[in-house]
Amino acid sequence: MLSEFDIIQRYFTRPTPHAVLGVGDDAALIEAAAGTELAVSTDMLVAGQHFFPETDPRSLGHKSLAVNLSDMAAMGAAPRWATLSLALPEQLVRENEKWLQAFADGFFELAHAHQVGLIGGDTTRGPLNICVTIIGEVAKGKALRRSGARPGDDIWMSGHLGDAALALAYQEGHIMLEAGEIEKCLAALHTPAPRVALGQQLIGLAHSAIDISDGLLADLEHILKSSSVAAVIKMDQINCSGSVKKYLQHPLGVKCLLAGGDDYELCFTAPRAKHQEIEMLSREQEISLTCIGSVEKGEGLVVLDPAGRKVTLETKGYDHFHAG
Amino acid sequence: MLSEFDIIQRYFTRPTPHAVLGVGDDAALIEAAAGTELAVSTDMLVAGQHFFPETDPRSLGHKSLAVNLSDMAAMGAAPRWATLSLALPEQLVRENEKWLQAFADGFFELAHAHQVGLIGGDTTRGPLNICVTIIGEVAKGKALRRSGARPGDDIWMSGHLGDAALALAYQEGHIMLEAGEIEKCLAALHTPAPRVALGQQLIGLAHSAIDISDGLLADLEHILKSSSVAAVIKMDQINCSGSVKKYLQHPLGVKCLLAGGDDYELCFTAPRAKHQEIEMLSREQEISLTCIGSVEKGEGLVVLDPAGRKVTLETKGYDHFHAG
Repeated sequence: MLSEFDIIQRYFTRPTPHAVLGVGDDAALIEAAAGTELAVSTDMLVAGQHFFPETDPRSLGHKSLAVNLSDMAAMGAAPRWATLSLALPEQLVRENEKWLQAFADGFFELAHAHQVGLIGGDTTRGPLNICVTIIGEVAKGKALRRSGARPGDDIWMSGHLGDAALALAYQEGHIMLEAGEIEKCLAALHTPAPRVALGQQLIGLAHSAIDISDGLLADLEHILKSSSVAAVIKMDQINCSGSVKKYLQHPLGVKCLLAGGDDYELCFTAPRAKHQEIEMLSREQEISLTCIGSVEKGEGLVVLDPAGRKVTLETKGYDHFHAG
Repeated sequence: MLSEFDIIQRYFTRPTPHAVLGVGDDAALIEAAAGTELAVSTDMLVAGQHFFPETDPRSLGHKSLAVNLSDMAAMGAAPRWATLSLALPEQLVRENEKWLQAFADGFFELAHAHQVGLIGGDTTRGPLNICVTIIGEVAKGKALRRSGARPGDDIWMSGHLGDAALALAYQEGHIMLEAGEIEKCLAALHTPAPRVALGQQLIGLAHSAIDISDGLLADLEHILKSSSVAAVIKMDQINCSGSVKKYLQHPLGVKCLLAGGDDYELCFTAPRAKHQEIEMLSREQEISLTCIGSVEKGEGLVVLDPAGRKVTLETKGYDHFHAG
């Protein structure tokens, strides 16, 4: 059976041109560019909790980095370096070395696309658990925070919401999807594309930002609480795919849209004076950016339906000890 | 039951004076001091693998940070910031909130002692798993690496070895210990004191360094391989407690000493010209520093017994997929 050192050497040691020292010492060494702050974030993915144990390992490698890249996007930071800690069941290492290869392939393909270097990590036996820490650079004082929203700001979202949650509902047997929809929704769930470039482009435009990982309402509420403001959003302005639209008469569809989670789009607020500039950015970058509401004085989040009535929802997002 | 956000808010949010932005956004923000490189390291501890599930949570909080501080020590870096990811069994959160309090107390007590700020993390349901990433500062180009050993260097170790491994052998019922010894050995196993200050003091003295986490021989071999050199060490020079000494006629005692692991002392090499300076450092700092051998040209590691015979050992250290 492969040893801990074999696994690291064979699957998780690649050149790290942007690091002073990569994998293989007691610690890696990195150097921040002058005039930058470093953004640091970490996410832990657990089998049976965040993913089905039988999930395609290549997708899992992709997603374990993608969720962290998405946090960098939400800060406007350029991701640079990552560490990867893996607890692997003994049986997996003994019987399924292909799993490791596919996981590493998925991880490094995305890392390479974003020029992120894997500079360290840990490998151990245990119930399958993946913990990635990411470090990115952002110009000093320029990072997008949750706390910067101001009354009068527009509220924006990138891309469209709900497909990942719809895929999960499909996998759990709650809904049926057509063949073409299945592929698209499963891709949204398993191989999300974090908005890394967009995040950096929003510096100087947005007052606040967050990535939509727990669901639009839950994540927008983080902005509102951090900024001590209220908001009104219009449900029919929220961008979603045709697949989600078909289910919007059903509570499940509304839940996927507003509280689905796993979208990895950005929600951000920006002064109204930047409205046209953001629309131009949307056209230039060919990324859908939609204005879905506005920041108000006070507290609380109101969602209005097309008739102007308040939408109520039982659950606002995903909490790992209060699963909705 | 406590939510994910409650747990973070209640137990893991403390002031972080050295960070630009701490817990509570998509990422933390830190700024490296001018002229420094950042050392980054991560360790994952798994219940049933690295510790017994019933381990005192306060000790566990201490140890989960201590093993990472030890990596900073081995690089000569000053630890500054840490992230903490926790997978917690649902039952633990529901029935044993005291566990969380005690774990946090142990973690923060050590963090405070070393002025390390907890700047982020993740909390999720799952089999108990603790993943800490640590970031430290070290003057540019000055970090102690494994690769700097040169023929003619002395080989040094700090403190004494084997007590933690002896504690484990005791807990597993392989040996008996006297009452006074039990406490001392269990403390070595559960609340190791990483050599953080020493590591920084060795900059300018040592050519190479590593922390002894997997066992002296295994860790020294990492230095030898990274530096493309050989070494000879003398077993009777290796510093150990009276408890370990009593067992040195027994293979278990030799194994605890040479391959025990969990010592979190430093092993380093330094030019002979620095011998007196290191002895002075030892006296001034009241840390035992012992010269145990020398670096040679070639490859391989030879251990000599007091009669000058080569010692052979079945296992050289701990590997998480080849437990010795």
